[in-house]
Amino acid sequence: MAQQHLDPTDPAAGPVTGDALARYLRSQATEFLRALRLHRETGGSGGAPGRAQPKPGDNGTAGSADAALALRQSARRISGSLHTYRPLLDAAWSEEIRPELAWLSGTLALEHACEARLERLLLALHRLSGATVFPAQPTVSAAAPGTTGPGVPPPATAERGNLTVGAAKAGALLERQLTLARTRAHSTALQALGSSRFHAVADKLAVLASDVPLVPAASTTDLRPLAAAAEERLTAAVTALPLVTAGHPYNAEALIHGLSPDPSPHPQDAPWHQVRLLLRLYRYAREVLAEDGEETSLHVSVLAAGQALNRHRDASEAAAAAAQAARTPRIAPATAYALGVLHADQRHEVEAARFAFQQAWQKQTVTTS
Amino acid sequence: MAQQHLDPTDPAAGPVTGDALARYLRSQATEFLRALRLHRETGGSGGAPGRAQPKPGDNGTAGSADAALALRQSARRISGSLHTYRPLLDAAWSEEIRPELAWLSGTLALEHACEARLERLLLALHRLSGATVFPAQPTVSAAAPGTTGPGVPPPATAERGNLTVGAAKAGALLERQLTLARTRAHSTALQALGSSRFHAVADKLAVLASDVPLVPAASTTDLRPLAAAAEERLTAAVTALPLVTAGHPYNAEALIHGLSPDPSPHPQDAPWHQVRLLLRLYRYAREVLAEDGEETSLHVSVLAAGQALNRHRDASEAAAAAAQAARTPRIAPATAYALGVLHADQRHEVEAARFAFQQAWQKQTVTTS
Repeated sequence: MAQQHLDPTDPAAGPVTGDALARYLRSQATEFLRALRLHRETGGSGGAPGRAQPKPGDNGTAGSADAALALRQSARRISGSLHTYRPLLDAAWSEEIRPELAWLSGTLALEHACEARLERLLLALHRLSGATVFPAQPTVSAAAPGTTGPGVPPPATAERGNLTVGAAKAGALLERQLTLARTRAHSTALQALGSSRFHAVADKLAVLASDVPLVPAASTTDLRPLAAAAEERLTAAVTALPLVTAGHPYNAEALIHGLSPDPSPHPQDAPWHQVRLLLRLYRYAREVLAEDGEETSLHVSVLAAGQALNRHRDASEAAAAAAQAARTPRIAPATAYALGVLHADQRHEVEAARFAFQQAWQKQTVTTS
Repeated sequence: MAQQHLDPTDPAAGPVTGDALARYLRSQATEFLRALRLHRETGGSGGAPGRAQPKPGDNGTAGSADAALALRQSARRISGSLHTYRPLLDAAWSEEIRPELAWLSGTLALEHACEARLERLLLALHRLSGATVFPAQPTVSAAAPGTTGPGVPPPATAERGNLTVGAAKAGALLERQLTLARTRAHSTALQALGSSRFHAVADKLAVLASDVPLVPAASTTDLRPLAAAAEERLTAAVTALPLVTAGHPYNAEALIHGLSPDPSPHPQDAPWHQVRLLLRLYRYAREVLAEDGEETSLHVSVLAAGQALNRHRDASEAAAAAAQAARTPRIAPATAYALGVLHADQRHEVEAARFAFQQAWQKQTVTTS
């Protein structure tokens, strides 16, 4: 990563200090408050973080989903910066707010995840059926990070006309199960946003928007070694991945255990999920440096690597949902067969995402080393 | 294919004439008769072309399977040479014997195909179950062309102990269906080898072993333009394949229509099967030239391309067998689910084989052009 490499021994580079961190945290806290206001304006009676029923073209609903995403994004950024630049911040304050931010972003993420998972699985069922009729609405990739549109509704039931009975029944079953999960996630998020726990977080962030609890030494502490440490944690985790296998197309690794007694979650996915989180932390760490005018643009391959890991996570969870649905009692064999094909298809998406990550990471290494 | 390119305009190369073809046909007919004798010696009472029950270590049975393979191989070579070098041979004789050779090699191939398909599917079920216990017998790849051992028995039922219920039931169902198909193929082959139709073919080949019915002009006709035409037919068929897609790993093409109403046989597989046959014809055409001392060794990439196409065919048929088994009435949902995973797994093998073919073919082109 030479181009972006954070060399703390570089004498030409002046230190980036706690001031940059304070600016970043203030701006993220301001973003959070802005999103919260937008959310309350668009979210209807309950201040819902998403929408109960997807209705394309319903701007209030779409605005509410956008606001929920923005809330999550700033909560994650604040939490990540607190982690990477821990030594510069008041420890008691930091330890108190970090789990609250994790609770909040986790709670707000669930509804969107259920919706994206259903969309992914229904699109896959269409693809596997050789169906040419796709929903007319513009498609937003569920895997692209940081993007969300007005919400792509799953293909309407009428459009499943050219699925086989098994695929149609599998689709209906998944729709039932994931819609139920989404509705639950929606209620949970609603409750969360109305809770005193949330109000306490919001109050803390309102203070953060003007007053960042730095330790006295922060104004002379260089952030760059801390960002470099985040990079090292990322690199070490990537090194531990089975990248040689992943770089060999059609290695058939991801579907191993596809029929094992406990197929979900796949233990082999965990190190990849971990790298995904470390890559995100590293990205946020560099955003903080950008507050001081540091070159921030990450190599395009690093971004591609991150996107591959998002796709990996989405496919892994979709495969687990298909396997889970197949355990529903009293389903027809044709339904179970379609779910089996779908599970395997998504596990191959997992494998494809690992390959894409390996390619992107290699490119990044070759270009910058 | 410059290294092996058959350039009929090359003035330095003397013509390869009908004498080489006659030598090749005589030697293949002799091979056929030798295999037939071996088969009668080892095949037991009925002169069976394979074995009714696989028993490793049963040398008579293994010898019989080897003999059946040798019979098929020489029948295919004679038939292929008759096709490529048609103008040099007595037309009436040629037209009479070719369909008989096709009938014979097709009939003899069925039993082995059922056995190899079952083995492939059971091994895949083990792999998909993350089972570490594999059969202790040496494994012979079912995809490797021209190789056959004493026959690798499918993993014994006891060794399926660590499969899940669904995978174990799917394995048992496939074993039942494919063993039945193999038994039928065995009977059919037995009947064929005892028929007057077979004896007529054997008599004709006995004559061919000493007397090849060439046309008068054969002794001055150059074989090389005919072999070059076989190469051109191969190249034209390869050019029509979707190689750009195939060369893009994880293109997810092979599983399209995986859940369509008529999943078997996949129409998209046909052009690949056709190239497989043309590649084999080209290989045999070059063996004939070798009778005259021509350089015969095909580029290793051409052989790898042929192996990829064998694997493509095997995976395609195994996927169809899994889909077919899933249509058995009254199977449990867990069985159907396992068959769905298995079907998708084999369709990904199809995709992997196309990728391998594309890579091998590209290498061959780069190296020799």
